Amino acid sequence: MNDAEDIALPAQPESGEVGLVEARDFHHRAEFAFESGQTLPEFTLRYETYGRLNATRDNAIIILHALSGDHHCAGIHTLNDRKPGWWNNLIGPGKAIDTTKFFVVCSNVLGGCQGSSGPSSINPATGRAYGTAFPFVTVRDMVRSQKLLCDHLEIACLHGVVGGSMGGMQALQWAIEYPGFVRRVLAMATTARENAQGIAFNEVGRQAIMQDPEWHGGDYAKGAGPRVGLAIARMMAHITYLSDASMDRKFGRRKAGATDGTAAGLDAQFEVENYLRHQGEVFINRFDANSYLYITRAIDHFDLPGAHGSLERAFAAVQAESLVLGFTSDWLFPPEQNRDIALALLRAGKRATYAQLDTDLGHDSFLLESPQLYDLVRDFLERARA
Amino acid sequence: MNDAEDIALPAQPESGEVGLVEARDFHHRAEFAFESGQTLPEFTLRYETYGRLNATRDNAIIILHALSGDHHCAGIHTLNDRKPGWWNNLIGPGKAIDTTKFFVVCSNVLGGCQGSSGPSSINPATGRAYGTAFPFVTVRDMVRSQKLLCDHLEIACLHGVVGGSMGGMQALQWAIEYPGFVRRVLAMATTARENAQGIAFNEVGRQAIMQDPEWHGGDYAKGAGPRVGLAIARMMAHITYLSDASMDRKFGRRKAGATDGTAAGLDAQFEVENYLRHQGEVFINRFDANSYLYITRAIDHFDLPGAHGSLERAFAAVQAESLVLGFTSDWLFPPEQNRDIALALLRAGKRATYAQLDTDLGHDSFLLESPQLYDLVRDFLERARA
Repeated sequence: MNDAEDIALPAQPESGEVGLVEARDFHHRAEFAFESGQTLPEFTLRYETYGRLNATRDNAIIILHALSGDHHCAGIHTLNDRKPGWWNNLIGPGKAIDTTKFFVVCSNVLGGCQGSSGPSSINPATGRAYGTAFPFVTVRDMVRSQKLLCDHLEIACLHGVVGGSMGGMQALQWAIEYPGFVRRVLAMATTARENAQGIAFNEVGRQAIMQDPEWHGGDYAKGAGPRVGLAIARMMAHITYLSDASMDRKFGRRKAGATDGTAAGLDAQFEVENYLRHQGEVFINRFDANSYLYITRAIDHFDLPGAHGSLERAFAAVQAESLVLGFTSDWLFPPEQNRDIALALLRAGKRATYAQLDTDLGHDSFLLESPQLYDLVRDFLERARA
Repeated sequence: MNDAEDIALPAQPESGEVGLVEARDFHHRAEFAFESGQTLPEFTLRYETYGRLNATRDNAIIILHALSGDHHCAGIHTLNDRKPGWWNNLIGPGKAIDTTKFFVVCSNVLGGCQGSSGPSSINPATGRAYGTAFPFVTVRDMVRSQKLLCDHLEIACLHGVVGGSMGGMQALQWAIEYPGFVRRVLAMATTARENAQGIAFNEVGRQAIMQDPEWHGGDYAKGAGPRVGLAIARMMAHITYLSDASMDRKFGRRKAGATDGTAAGLDAQFEVENYLRHQGEVFINRFDANSYLYITRAIDHFDLPGAHGSLERAFAAVQAESLVLGFTSDWLFPPEQNRDIALALLRAGKRATYAQLDTDLGHDSFLLESPQLYDLVRDFLERARA
C-alpha cells in the first residue's frame, strides 16, 4: 500500500485477467462536511484502478461496492493470491467491463474498514480509533467523497457508474448528485428505498453487535471487540443473500461430517450450519463491527422518494442513460423494487431500461457467473449512446 | 395451577367466549423413552381443555402449538386477563372450533418451558434444572407424550388434530403414528421436511443463545441466562413470521418517536426497530433459552420423507382425512411445501384436500383473524365424514 497519488498503472494483464494490482490511498487534505452537518478535517479513500484513462479523460467507470465489499474488485495482490477481487468475473481485459477500453476505479466507501476513513481510523484528537465518534455516514456522503477522488484523478466525466445492492444505491445517487458528470448508470439488485423488512434485518444485526458485552459502546481495540455479535449478524445477513432454492440445492439436509451424538445435539449437525459458522468466522477477521453498524445505518436511511418527494422528482435532473437489473430470486431487493426504479426514470422522461434475470441464486446473483449478465453489461457500456 | 387429574370443567362461557380456564398438569408416572434412546423416569405435560368429552369419548380435538406457543390457546386465566389464549379467535362456543360440540385439548410440548417437562425442569438426581442434560426431543416424542395424555383423559379417538407451523408437523406425525386414533388432520403453514433455509435461521438463533456468555453451557439460574442471545434469536425469527408487504404496511419507514439525534444514530430510529426490540424483551420474560434450543432442534430434525423413504410411504398407514392449508405470503413454510403434503397424501391413496389462502400477512397468517380460514376449519371439522 503506498501513498502515490498518480493514476495507477496496473501490471501487464495475461489472458483476460487484470493481473497484479495495487491499492492506493487518496488523502483529501481539506475539511469534509457530512450530510449530518458533522465534519472531518480530512479523509482517506483506499482505491484501485485498472486500465488507463484516455486522452479525453472520459472513459472512466466507477465500481460501487455493497455492504461488505471493498476497493479490491478485480485482479490479484500477489502472484500467490488465490482469491481475486470480488467482481473479477466481470472486470478485466475483454471481459464485460473491458479494461482495455475503460479506466475502472473502485474505492472502499467512507465509513468502511478496508483502508478508507471510518470508525476504526485513528482520531488525531485522541490517538485512538474514532469508534462511534466518527460522523454518521450516508450513501450521499459516500458518493460525494468518491467525486473528490474522481476530481483528484482528473476524470473529466464518468462513462459509467456500476454497482449492485448498496452499490446500486450509490449508482443512483451519483446520477442524481452529479447529473452532468455521469453518462451511464448500471444499478442491479438494489432499491430506491430500504423497506421495513430490510431495516429490520439490519437492526437485528446491529443489536447482536451492540449487545455483545465486548462492544463497549464502540470503544474496543483493533482485533478485539464484539466478534461474537458480528459473526451472528453476518450469519443472519448471509441467509438473506441466498435463496431457499439455492440453499436447498447446495446443502439440503445433508448432515455435517462430525456430530457429537450427545443428547442435546447442539453442535453442528447439518452442513448448512458449518457453512454459516464458517461465514461468520471469516467475516470477523476482515470486517470492523463499528463499520458494520455505520454502513447498515447508511442503507437504512437510503430513501430517494422520501428525500425528494417522489422517485420521479428524485430523478428530475438525471442526464444519464440507465440500465436497472433485477434478479427473480432476490428476496432482499426483489425484482419489483428494481423495476420500479426504471419505471420512475421513464416517467421522469429519462432513458432507462429494466431487465430481469431469471436465476434461483438469490440476492448474490449479481456477483456470480452469468453469461447473460455479462452480455447485458457489455452491451450497455459499449453500445453507441442513444 | 393444580394437580387435579380429572377432566377440566371450564367456567361458564359468555357470548361466544371460552371464558375462564385453568391449566392442569398431567403427570405420567412411568418411564418415558425418547426417540434418541434416552429416558426420563417420569414427565409432566401442562394442558388446558375446553368443552366436554361426549359419552362416546370421540369428540376430542387436540390443538398443537408452534415453537413459541403453549397450552393456553383459548379463554382467559383471570377476569382481568386482557390477553386470551393464542388461538382464541378460532376456538370457543360457536367459533370455527366449536367448544359446544368438541372437547378441545391443548398441552405445552415436551421440552417446553410453560409447565411441561423440559430443560428448565428440576432434575431430581441433582436438584438443579436439567439444562442440556434433558433428553433430545423430537416432534415424534412430543406426539407420543400427547398420546399418553389422551389415554389419561380416556379419549377413545381424536375427532381432529389441528396445528400450524410446528403444530402442523405434530398433526402429520399424529396421523402417521396413531392411524387408528385420528379421524381428521388439519395442518397449516407447515412442512413435511425442514429445509436448509429453515435450519439456517434456527441455527443463527441457537448461536446467538449459545455464544452469549451468560449461557454457560445451558447451566444458568431461572430468570438469568442468555437473555441477550434469546432476544436476538426472537427478533430475527419474528421477521420470518411476517412478510415484506405486511411489514411495509405496518411500519414502512416511519420514524421512532424519540431518537438521540447523535452522530452514529444507533438507537432506534425507525418504528420497526422499537417493535422488534419490544418483541425480544417480551419473549425473554416468558421463554427459556434452552427450550428454544431444544424445540428448534426438533424442528430441524423433522423430515418425514427422510424418515420413511418418501412422503407417500410416510403416509402409507394414515387413515385420517386431511386438510392442508397454505398461505400465499408465507415464506418460512411456503404454500408449495403445504401443497406437496396434500399431493403426497393423495398419491398414497388418502382423502386429502389442499386449500390456499390469499394473504399478505406471512407465516403468522394462520394465527390471525380470517373469516375464510374460519369457514374452512369449521367445514372440515363439522361436515359428515366422506
